[in-house]
Amino acid sequence: MKLYNWQFAPNCRRVRMFVLEKKLDLPSIEEVVGSGLRLLPAYVDRWPHAMVPMLETDQGARIGEAMAICRYFEDLHPEPNLMGRDALEKATVEMWERRAYDEGMIGTAEVFRNSHPDFVDRGLPGALDRVPQIPALIERGRGRVARFYRKCEAQLKSNDWIAGSRFTVADITTLCAMDFAIFNGMTIPDDCASIRRWYDRVNSRPTAAASQ
Amino acid sequence: MKLYNWQFAPNCRRVRMFVLEKKLDLPSIEEVVGSGLRLLPAYVDRWPHAMVPMLETDQGARIGEAMAICRYFEDLHPEPNLMGRDALEKATVEMWERRAYDEGMIGTAEVFRNSHPDFVDRGLPGALDRVPQIPALIERGRGRVARFYRKCEAQLKSNDWIAGSRFTVADITTLCAMDFAIFNGMTIPDDCASIRRWYDRVNSRPTAAASQ
Repeated sequence: MKLYNWQFAPNCRRVRMFVLEKKLDLPSIEEVVGSGLRLLPAYVDRWPHAMVPMLETDQGARIGEAMAICRYFEDLHPEPNLMGRDALEKATVEMWERRAYDEGMIGTAEVFRNSHPDFVDRGLPGALDRVPQIPALIERGRGRVARFYRKCEAQLKSNDWIAGSRFTVADITTLCAMDFAIFNGMTIPDDCASIRRWYDRVNSRPTAAASQ
Repeated sequence: MKLYNWQFAPNCRRVRMFVLEKKLDLPSIEEVVGSGLRLLPAYVDRWPHAMVPMLETDQGARIGEAMAICRYFEDLHPEPNLMGRDALEKATVEMWERRAYDEGMIGTAEVFRNSHPDFVDRGLPGALDRVPQIPALIERGRGRVARFYRKCEAQLKSNDWIAGSRFTVADITTLCAMDFAIFNGMTIPDDCASIRRWYDRVNSRPTAAASQ
């Protein structure tokens, strides 16, 4: 089994942290990003979706999309459960995981992709033709992240974890999104005391450091 | 059980078609979009995430995000299975469902939200503060949809259905995304014969019409 990886990419970290929380060894890892933060041409030839992460199974099946890879591991190794046990918990975890991705991760990606000099004309991942950066997305992305912080603060005021009473994949995506936001200068607001308590708790898990 | 709904919204249609494919009755439906294509204030007060769809269970739990609602129904009513049976099929369905959403649905939404006169200063769903439209996203969204069509054509050339050999939720999201694209003038390209064959097959399912 092999994980095609870009060590810096928050979407790859989601998978690595998930695997470590399952107490599994990481699959063999191949780095596929080279100079100028570009995917290596040999990787794009094999995987025209041109995104990371991608998992190749021993039987040669290829799975892209971080959450699809996580779901593969959840099914093969059900414990510890990270995606919900009953219908309502599964739905709640999925709701928060998708929000963390759509609002926290994509909001930050809008800032990062549209401002970083290595991504001129590469405003979207997975696009092999020219996609110009759109400077207006920098401000829009910052607003998205700010709203995401407010939403998480409200949730964590009355819940220990993002999806409720225990640690799940929703916490993993939220941590990876927030660390990406922090890296891009969007730190946790001072008045978000509940997020800060949660962040310290999640960030002190051994898998948080080991997945970086 | 109640589904808070905007009949036109493709994300609501994903849920309605999923429920109908499960051969369940639709939950009681409350329309929450009023004049100017705005969410009713009473709905936003109850559900500050300010998006549709949202499912309220008989016990009062609230689930947002179309796929979280679908997963709730999949767990309660496992047959017919729409989200995959074993680890690899679950992962493959999730990969394609997420792509259909991220590329087809969001690509089209970029065109729609940033060009429609009713969405001036409401460039993003779920944001209650002012989010200006970004005209450059119209062209970027069109490119995203064009790439999504190419990706689906390649997949459907060697597979009867989006995630492989049988109908799944990945087909539902893809149909809803493509119908949204078609409504916005981005019709299936003439040279995408495999998509056209698949589209006719999916679109002739009774649930395709009944969910509209």
